[in-house]
Amino acid sequence: MTAPGFDAAELAARVKAGDRRALARAITLVESSRADDAPRRRALLREISPIPREGFTLAVTGVPGAGKSTLIDVYGRRLLAAGHRVAILTVDPSSARSGGSVLGDKTRMGELVKDPRAFVRPSPSSGAYGGAAPRTREALMLCRAAAFERIVLETVGVGQSERDAALVADVVVYVTLAGAGDDLQGLKRGALEHADVIVFNKADGEARARVESDASRFAAAFALLRPDAPPRVLTTSAADGTGVGALLDEIERRAGELESSGRLDRLRARQAEAWFDAELDREVLRRFHGDARVAARVPALKAAIARGAQLPSEAVEDLLDELEPRDGG
Amino acid sequence: MTAPGFDAAELAARVKAGDRRALARAITLVESSRADDAPRRRALLREISPIPREGFTLAVTGVPGAGKSTLIDVYGRRLLAAGHRVAILTVDPSSARSGGSVLGDKTRMGELVKDPRAFVRPSPSSGAYGGAAPRTREALMLCRAAAFERIVLETVGVGQSERDAALVADVVVYVTLAGAGDDLQGLKRGALEHADVIVFNKADGEARARVESDASRFAAAFALLRPDAPPRVLTTSAADGTGVGALLDEIERRAGELESSGRLDRLRARQAEAWFDAELDREVLRRFHGDARVAARVPALKAAIARGAQLPSEAVEDLLDELEPRDGG
Repeated sequence: MTAPGFDAAELAARVKAGDRRALARAITLVESSRADDAPRRRALLREISPIPREGFTLAVTGVPGAGKSTLIDVYGRRLLAAGHRVAILTVDPSSARSGGSVLGDKTRMGELVKDPRAFVRPSPSSGAYGGAAPRTREALMLCRAAAFERIVLETVGVGQSERDAALVADVVVYVTLAGAGDDLQGLKRGALEHADVIVFNKADGEARARVESDASRFAAAFALLRPDAPPRVLTTSAADGTGVGALLDEIERRAGELESSGRLDRLRARQAEAWFDAELDREVLRRFHGDARVAARVPALKAAIARGAQLPSEAVEDLLDELEPRDGG
Repeated sequence: MTAPGFDAAELAARVKAGDRRALARAITLVESSRADDAPRRRALLREISPIPREGFTLAVTGVPGAGKSTLIDVYGRRLLAAGHRVAILTVDPSSARSGGSVLGDKTRMGELVKDPRAFVRPSPSSGAYGGAAPRTREALMLCRAAAFERIVLETVGVGQSERDAALVADVVVYVTLAGAGDDLQGLKRGALEHADVIVFNKADGEARARVESDASRFAAAFALLRPDAPPRVLTTSAADGTGVGALLDEIERRAGELESSGRLDRLRARQAEAWFDAELDREVLRRFHGDARVAARVPALKAAIARGAQLPSEAVEDLLDELEPRDGG
């Protein structure tokens, strides 16, 4: 099962030493969907374990164009100035199509990319069954193995991604835009339930007072509807920098709290178990739906259901019994 | 596959004629988990198809003790007075344990039970993988087949049940209690996203003004956070009847709208497809997790993950490859 010219132990050692080029190569390997990369990927991940528990992970999600990359860029530079090493992973389904925003990110994060203590990685998102890129967590683990003290995961807010982010990140920040007057848009459903911090960006110039008032209304609404764990609601202007300091302070406060409270071990154990449970179910369903016999039968069953000829639950039983009779065999 | 003394066609015909005793027997059969009942259940469901699209379905969910049963009782009696036939199915995980609230329901709904145009059925909830009672939808379909014009599904609010209810019901009503002052409790997460109507019950006597003010704040919060489809927020006093008329009017308005708008066919088709998709995934996972080899292996894998010896995704691959090698076999 070994591949010529590939030394998993050596690559793992270089990743653990914080070598950015090795980290990039390792992430490419874990993200590969080529079947013949699988043995190397698995050998690498075996060598890389156990993963250190440290590495505060921040997920930044929200509507496209809300200014996530700019905020992350400012955060990253502040971390570097404070002496931290920072890794930034972006998972953007839209950029996989257009290619545009990945280049945009790279340009905006140009300063970070040059700093040897920073690692910036635009990940291709895969259209896997289940929604989110399935290898994001492995990439994140590799960053943790490479001893980055802060890891930022940038995703686009599409409901499912907030749920996934909440499973792997220590804090989920949802970035949205203040609307113009009555245009104030609601939050995506995932953000309603899973965001820890909600940021109204572009609270610029004349709009600032209005955006701040809108933000107060959101904060009050959350205090009412999620009283046990209301998200913190903040306003920022990436243009003139107002509020960005308060946002970064809030994030660092949470990072510090996590590190000093002794909750880290329990949190990582819980995240790992949630990851296992979610990944197991997702993979079981992915393999099931990827079965050619299933794909061939489902359309006819759905047509029968639509005609009213069969109840959905009966169609399910028929399908499963066809694939694997219960009476043994 | 036929059972002696059982005539599926005859039972189906009696259900379709609206015979309450036949309906009760049919529901008992579909709820049976005995393997030897399966052929009869399936024969019955084949005979009962196609199910008529009519039968407005209302899910009533919410915190225990909020007064759901009393509201349903009032609603049921009003429907009878208006000349409708009504079926009430209750799914209450707590009552399956205590037995108490099912008896309570029966007592409270005593008047309904006596009326030949009403059908009241406390369903045992099963602790199936996936949370909700898996045969509730079949029971609901049998009520629809029996030409009940209104079907009420009572469930306890536990997050998952709101999601399930939203898949089968035409309207989801979430009943909660007004808290005392600062005690105002938030909503369950499922209700946050899936309720169509939110009712603050026990807005009685002196508390009424305060509860109404709280309800206004909830309505404003929802208008902000779910602007595209905010739930209607109402207050009721089951004790003195205030607000109950307005709630029932709101429900009937939605029922009438659905019947007159021509959306019924599309809605039923969408519900059937959502049911099929949800049921298929649930059943695939139920069978998987019910596999003795899976149950035997998972604890050791979770222990390895907790030790950091293995990444969760690798443990998932190991497990699935062990069970069913990908290279054929």
